Amino acid sequence: MLETPRVVENGNIGPVNSAKVPRYSGEPTFALLPRLRDLETEGRTADIKIIGAPFDTGVSYRPGARFGPSHVRQSSRLLRPYNPGTSTSPFAQVQVADAGDMALNPFNIKEAISSIEEDALALTEDGATLLTIGGDHTIALPLLRAASKRAGEPVALLHFDAHLDTWDTYFGADYTHGTPFRRAAEEGVINSSALCHVGTRGPLYGKKDLDDDEAFGFGIVSSADIFHKGVGEVVSMLRDRIGNSPLYISLDIDVLDPAHAPGTGTPEAGGMTSRELLEIFRGLRGLNLVGADVVEVLPGYDHAELTGIAAAHASYDLLSLMADLRANA
Amino acid sequence: MLETPRVVENGNIGPVNSAKVPRYSGEPTFALLPRLRDLETEGRTADIKIIGAPFDTGVSYRPGARFGPSHVRQSSRLLRPYNPGTSTSPFAQVQVADAGDMALNPFNIKEAISSIEEDALALTEDGATLLTIGGDHTIALPLLRAASKRAGEPVALLHFDAHLDTWDTYFGADYTHGTPFRRAAEEGVINSSALCHVGTRGPLYGKKDLDDDEAFGFGIVSSADIFHKGVGEVVSMLRDRIGNSPLYISLDIDVLDPAHAPGTGTPEAGGMTSRELLEIFRGLRGLNLVGADVVEVLPGYDHAELTGIAAAHASYDLLSLMADLRANA
Amino acid sequence: MLETPRVVENGNIGPVNSAKVPRYSGEPTFALLPRLRDLETEGRTADIKIIGAPFDTGVSYRPGARFGPSHVRQSSRLLRPYNPGTSTSPFAQVQVADAGDMALNPFNIKEAISSIEEDALALTEDGATLLTIGGDHTIALPLLRAASKRAGEPVALLHFDAHLDTWDTYFGADYTHGTPFRRAAEEGVINSSALCHVGTRGPLYGKKDLDDDEAFGFGIVSSADIFHKGVGEVVSMLRDRIGNSPLYISLDIDVLDPAHAPGTGTPEAGGMTSRELLEIFRGLRGLNLVGADVVEVLPGYDHAELTGIAAAHASYDLLSLMADLRANA
Amino acid sequence: MLETPRVVENGNIGPVNSAKVPRYSGEPTFALLPRLRDLETEGRTADIKIIGAPFDTGVSYRPGARFGPSHVRQSSRLLRPYNPGTSTSPFAQVQVADAGDMALNPFNIKEAISSIEEDALALTEDGATLLTIGGDHTIALPLLRAASKRAGEPVALLHFDAHLDTWDTYFGADYTHGTPFRRAAEEGVINSSALCHVGTRGPLYGKKDLDDDEAFGFGIVSSADIFHKGVGEVVSMLRDRIGNSPLYISLDIDVLDPAHAPGTGTPEAGGMTSRELLEIFRGLRGLNLVGADVVEVLPGYDHAELTGIAAAHASYDLLSLMADLRANA
Amino acid sequence: MLETPRVVENGNIGPVNSAKVPRYSGEPTFALLPRLRDLETEGRTADIKIIGAPFDTGVSYRPGARFGPSHVRQSSRLLRPYNPGTSTSPFAQVQVADAGDMALNPFNIKEAISSIEEDALALTEDGATLLTIGGDHTIALPLLRAASKRAGEPVALLHFDAHLDTWDTYFGADYTHGTPFRRAAEEGVINSSALCHVGTRGPLYGKKDLDDDEAFGFGIVSSADIFHKGVGEVVSMLRDRIGNSPLYISLDIDVLDPAHAPGTGTPEAGGMTSRELLEIFRGLRGLNLVGADVVEVLPGYDHAELTGIAAAHASYDLLSLMADLRANA
Amino acid sequence: MLETPRVVENGNIGPVNSAKVPRYSGEPTFALLPRLRDLETEGRTADIKIIGAPFDTGVSYRPGARFGPSHVRQSSRLLRPYNPGTSTSPFAQVQVADAGDMALNPFNIKEAISSIEEDALALTEDGATLLTIGGDHTIALPLLRAASKRAGEPVALLHFDAHLDTWDTYFGADYTHGTPFRRAAEEGVINSSALCHVGTRGPLYGKKDLDDDEAFGFGIVSSADIFHKGVGEVVSMLRDRIGNSPLYISLDIDVLDPAHAPGTGTPEAGGMTSRELLEIFRGLRGLNLVGADVVEVLPGYDHAELTGIAAAHASYDLLSLMADLRANA
Repeated sequence: MLETPRVVENGNIGPVNSAKVPRYSGEPTFALLPRLRDLETEGRTADIKIIGAPFDTGVSYRPGARFGPSHVRQSSRLLRPYNPGTSTSPFAQVQVADAGDMALNPFNIKEAISSIEEDALALTEDGATLLTIGGDHTIALPLLRAASKRAGEPVALLHFDAHLDTWDTYFGADYTHGTPFRRAAEEGVINSSALCHVGTRGPLYGKKDLDDDEAFGFGIVSSADIFHKGVGEVVSMLRDRIGNSPLYISLDIDVLDPAHAPGTGTPEAGGMTSRELLEIFRGLRGLNLVGADVVEVLPGYDHAELTGIAAAHASYDLLSLMADLRANA
Repeated sequence: MLETPRVVENGNIGPVNSAKVPRYSGEPTFALLPRLRDLETEGRTADIKIIGAPFDTGVSYRPGARFGPSHVRQSSRLLRPYNPGTSTSPFAQVQVADAGDMALNPFNIKEAISSIEEDALALTEDGATLLTIGGDHTIALPLLRAASKRAGEPVALLHFDAHLDTWDTYFGADYTHGTPFRRAAEEGVINSSALCHVGTRGPLYGKKDLDDDEAFGFGIVSSADIFHKGVGEVVSMLRDRIGNSPLYISLDIDVLDPAHAPGTGTPEAGGMTSRELLEIFRGLRGLNLVGADVVEVLPGYDHAELTGIAAAHASYDLLSLMADLRANA
Repeated sequence: MLETPRVVENGNIGPVNSAKVPRYSGEPTFALLPRLRDLETEGRTADIKIIGAPFDTGVSYRPGARFGPSHVRQSSRLLRPYNPGTSTSPFAQVQVADAGDMALNPFNIKEAISSIEEDALALTEDGATLLTIGGDHTIALPLLRAASKRAGEPVALLHFDAHLDTWDTYFGADYTHGTPFRRAAEEGVINSSALCHVGTRGPLYGKKDLDDDEAFGFGIVSSADIFHKGVGEVVSMLRDRIGNSPLYISLDIDVLDPAHAPGTGTPEAGGMTSRELLEIFRGLRGLNLVGADVVEVLPGYDHAELTGIAAAHASYDLLSLMADLRANA
Repeated sequence: MLETPRVVENGNIGPVNSAKVPRYSGEPTFALLPRLRDLETEGRTADIKIIGAPFDTGVSYRPGARFGPSHVRQSSRLLRPYNPGTSTSPFAQVQVADAGDMALNPFNIKEAISSIEEDALALTEDGATLLTIGGDHTIALPLLRAASKRAGEPVALLHFDAHLDTWDTYFGADYTHGTPFRRAAEEGVINSSALCHVGTRGPLYGKKDLDDDEAFGFGIVSSADIFHKGVGEVVSMLRDRIGNSPLYISLDIDVLDPAHAPGTGTPEAGGMTSRELLEIFRGLRGLNLVGADVVEVLPGYDHAELTGIAAAHASYDLLSLMADLRANA
Repeated sequence: MLETPRVVENGNIGPVNSAKVPRYSGEPTFALLPRLRDLETEGRTADIKIIGAPFDTGVSYRPGARFGPSHVRQSSRLLRPYNPGTSTSPFAQVQVADAGDMALNPFNIKEAISSIEEDALALTEDGATLLTIGGDHTIALPLLRAASKRAGEPVALLHFDAHLDTWDTYFGADYTHGTPFRRAAEEGVINSSALCHVGTRGPLYGKKDLDDDEAFGFGIVSSADIFHKGVGEVVSMLRDRIGNSPLYISLDIDVLDPAHAPGTGTPEAGGMTSRELLEIFRGLRGLNLVGADVVEVLPGYDHAELTGIAAAHASYDLLSLMADLRANA
Repeated sequence: MLETPRVVENGNIGPVNSAKVPRYSGEPTFALLPRLRDLETEGRTADIKIIGAPFDTGVSYRPGARFGPSHVRQSSRLLRPYNPGTSTSPFAQVQVADAGDMALNPFNIKEAISSIEEDALALTEDGATLLTIGGDHTIALPLLRAASKRAGEPVALLHFDAHLDTWDTYFGADYTHGTPFRRAAEEGVINSSALCHVGTRGPLYGKKDLDDDEAFGFGIVSSADIFHKGVGEVVSMLRDRIGNSPLYISLDIDVLDPAHAPGTGTPEAGGMTSRELLEIFRGLRGLNLVGADVVEVLPGYDHAELTGIAAAHASYDLLSLMADLRANA
């Protein structure tokens, strides 16, 4: 009774069949995909898993990203199964599933970081690729730890963000949303020869921010660079920098201009458009993408799901890259 | 992995244990209760079932109630398991579960009405009591049909609403959100000696609206009556009118003043407060409540989940009445 | 072609027939009533005229009431023709029409005040009763001037407002939204033995504000008085104070609590509910109401037409009082 | 009394004279143009007519476009009479008027479609060109039927939209906002050699969507194409494709990025900017434009009239093209 | 140059003179009062100090109260110096000043709690009375510690809140916004014979919540009690319970119904109105009020400063009680 | 006690040290810079002063810019001290301070204009450069008067705006937000050989608007020009036109597309992005910038501080140009 009809292709169980169930109905899993637990009940698993990390205790300004996972899921109801940007059907190429949310302690950053790492390792034990929906950017550190463990080497990193997030400490705290990539560099979980920030802009504390950042090996493609050089040239630069390394993509939604993503915690004017972001993602096809996150979506400051939809579409293109890679592996 | 810890009491599987999983995490089932399908997978069922009816093709003014079920669920995350208003723990008294949403055709009102009736009958085949989250008020008709079939007799009706909803046709349409109770009266599924509107106010088309309504057997306790007479007297009047009949409660959230429920389709100034509504519900304890609905929540016009929270709390008190009744049956 | 079908009763041309034209369609005249100019084209006129006064240059805090008339009209689309609160059909009792908006200079307060007075006199030359939708409270002065000219004597005043509006000058300006009733008292256009503020609350500049106010003859029924004494006793007091004098009612929507009317310029906590306001209005039935205004609606701060709907319903009850009086004259 | 002064040029009665009446005052006709009915009362008619089609029963996701016409009109108050983008004064070149809204049955899609076709034919009987403000995209089908009848041949179509809208059926319904152009192709009311979608993006159901679409003769200029090729090249391609055919332009406001048009029903990230849209429109000057619509504006999801203003400006440029064409015919 | 003219009465430097500086201008200190630091520069101090505690790391659901102090100050611009509810001019009776914000570590709850206690002690070293604007409810614990140290004995507590806030731990954390009063009871900083919750409502975790609470000595006047018994009787009960003990008042703005205070973190339907709250406060005149806080204002969820204004007015009445007490001491 | 730690570099007292005080805490001066009055108390002054001009009585459509200064300040809390766009630390290069707000009469435009001119002259008597945050565009006239007096010659003007603002009179008023630059030209305070509008778009009243504008010496770089020619070419044109003249920049935030700046009074579709604006500003480095304003920010129509943040970042880049110029003078 009340069975949910689904699109099934190549043996992969896909989203709810929206010809039979209106897209505003039913459980808001990502893109209306099956729950991982339901697959597991039937003895199956998934090639790509989407997991929420509702945690925002690491923020320095506006909090609220703890509601990010549920908001992005609600905003993903309209995603359909065929991606004309890549001419692929990601949910038919491989099995994709929504693994729900991690249970994270909001009062203890270190404990939460440990949980995230453990959960990420557990979810990828079977070789699955992970897409994580945050949550604030603090979560990138344990996700990078897990990714490099699974990769068996430090991972390359493309970091889409208005900010560098390589600051050191803040109020004596080592682990916040401003520090994950410094910690990752110090811990050796990222590959210092294959790191790049994309879309940065806005004022910094000082020139030293840039010097430190460069010392960790990061390149910078600023929002202004994208504007002046164009997406094509930027894609070439990024592909050159990353090469064949196992690649992790971390997307802070504030990389988009506040017009495109008002619902975020530390917005900066002068950002890129959602079209530029999606076009860059499509240009990265074939890179060895081993994991990704989408963070800093704050529904409390969103309007008409503007930010949620941008995050959902970006996630969808990341999933398409992952699926295509696995299908062609 | 990622098992969801739950509160279990008297053998009843209750909401997610919020001491272990923050309430903003995980699937937004109503009050974080278990999904009916998960219970069924384990060979169990539920005494009380919550079902969404995302349908709003019957509206004459602002549409958007199709998003009502997902909004009320999201707004119900803070509901805790003990109700001090009734000194009961409804989710421990009986098994309550979230049955998800019906799949309803947005382009065919009659087909949708048939589906709702069928689904309601199917869900109550095992004797379960049903609480339905709408959706627009059109859905009350098939729900009343099902309720009277299960009761084996026309049901008493307490109809909380700013409007009478006993109009005849509108643009040639017999089945809209303004007509369910006229149709129900004509079909004989409601008990003409035990009917009352509660909270009505606002202009009508003419005196005939009142005359017709009275002819069907409805009493009226207006919003002004509640203000002048007080909740205690109103409760007495309602209990007298209903007696021991099997009772269905239909709550249009616009019975609340727009200050308390801005997110609705046909708001009228001068309404009752959410406190008055909850106090009236608590006064109905012990009546033979066989079914209920909560309708006309439009998230597109809501703010800060104001309307969603009011609907969630009202639903929770209706569930408490149902659970208490079943536990003491 | 595209003729607008209307409800016609007792020879009075009423609102659009909403059984044939959905209420969200067509021109947003107040309550979908006919335009005065269209009546005049057919050689008719109206007994009661609704006129907008889009002007807010007199405000001391939040501006935006210049958009008030169009917002209240848009929010009045749901008003139906029969008022169960008074058991009357105002638009059938007499001819009511929407006279559009005055054209007021936003850069010259004195010129605007003169225009309003002239327009009000012109509109009432045929004996019509006027309901004016503001605009800020500055407009009450010229409206009172016109009302007293038409009445041939100073008019009684019931002033519903959080504030006294009897301040003297502000930044050297004599004519602002804080001063209309002091000016009206000085000019002798209000009847010093029949004046009352209703719903006042919130801090003042000093005790002298109250002393001055009292010296002009005003009584005060505060928001707290309404809460403690109840609507019935308040109505009695007001009727005693007003007696048979020609009465003008000036309603600043900020008399309502900000929960009921967020879209206003100088909100104060602790206000009355829209239900209390409507019940007081209904208690004034039979008083010699010769004119009224509804002011200080700011759509820029409104949500889901909450304030607009409250203003529309209050206007509707004022119209009902006016129509009933004229019909029974 | 209260006469509305207007700009009159070349004998054409234009908008309200905003040097005498503030633009926020008075009736919200489109661009403050005269009402068609007022012109007709004086024995005149209009060369270009703007008509609202408040209907949204054909939507598959967010409803609310029924409030689109009144929202776009309110948002058009700032439009002035000279268009520097085309160096023309459209309201002086020809007579333009606001014809009000069609009265459409919200409960019967087929009846509504018939009404729209009839109304469109009636409005163009005198040779007028029609600009229709929706409403959801369902309305394009009857408007295309009427346009091809008036043209005496199938019309060319430029379809600005994030979506193809050539799907077949949805829940068994043939006529919805996702199907108008398939139906139009099947009915032979569009010219299969002169069809193009502009601005498409976002996921589809499958590759077959594209194949079917191509089979009907549609070309596609995606949002990404506009980004990569630029407006100039796109304009050339479109002009080549359309040639001298009688042309209908259908603008779904969701062709804009959600940042530019949040108030719409099925938003997709990665869209074009309002500047790109207006520049493309200006590039189409001289094409044989015989009719147009602007659809899918949902005020319930808009903010600060962002979407309404974009729609109003797009409508204004469409009117400018129509006026210029007729003035130079 | 650009000197700020102020109201000075009885030698006390009051708010900006709003006859010379519009209230929307200048620095948003609370009620436009002088900054404490400016007074100190001139060798003065203040009898009553308003201090912000921007901290929200202790929250279990919606965060954002860190922006509470700046929001309440911005919303307090309209407060005038004479309180007709108490017939006093608090800023003339004693010197009141705005002491700015505490600098609190968002990443370390225990450190923040220590800072608050230290700051509160430092600010009251000269005998000043403190009103603190939160921040989440975690801050009440260190404020109570400081208050009892200054009082030299455990303080009585009136706790206005929808919730009990006497839970034990949450995710292993002892110090959160759900636990301050249990900790305070355990630490002996509150007087177990003079404790009362006011305005509680909404579901709890279990009956044990109530039992534990009662064991700490708390009485409960629920929101329903206020509704049924009335403000007068409630005031008597509270006065009886408190007697002459040094009294601390802690106001969680969620004690108001969400209609009156949408901008808060854990809203519950069925709450009291702002008028009831202010009337209760006025009934407490003469009690030995030694400190107070106003917490849980979240601007991210507020609308039109609704919640900010309610908090500002409540703060103003608390200040009036404090000033009157000190002036008459 | 509660001392505010600040960043001090090169002897210049900079913003609050955000490593010790969270950026959401404390007084919302622009970029958390010191108050000018506090510097003056210590016998210092500032090289660059930021002053608010909260005035909006000159507006013809949406009012509300009177709240602009406080909104831009609140939105500027995230600005950090190093500008990577210019590789400078403006607050370390020279002393920058927030001078608070002017006290401006809202009821008398001419008096307000005089006050602004006097205040601007007083603030620049010591040679300081002034950045003014409006307020509506009326304020540009007195600011240009003061700037030309200080420069000793008419100043060059770069005017970023959707509109020309060289209209003549409106409703008989000479001084409004549509006329400042015509008045400035007539008064000879701007240099007719070095004037340019940037970003204009949207309909005008007639061709004469353009002719008049050109006659005053203005060039126009429209929004479309920026799109078609690119920022690099536009910068060259502007630099050529301005040369070495003392330059005043006036930024109406409505130069941005409504997507980037919804919170403004007369929005027009088709505008530039915030990235384009910032890139143009950066291209103006080295020009002889003697003063600037940022106007027409209306928080009442803003969302999530989108417009406030755009204005804050634009202001920051203007400050960077000013500081760099002075530091290298």
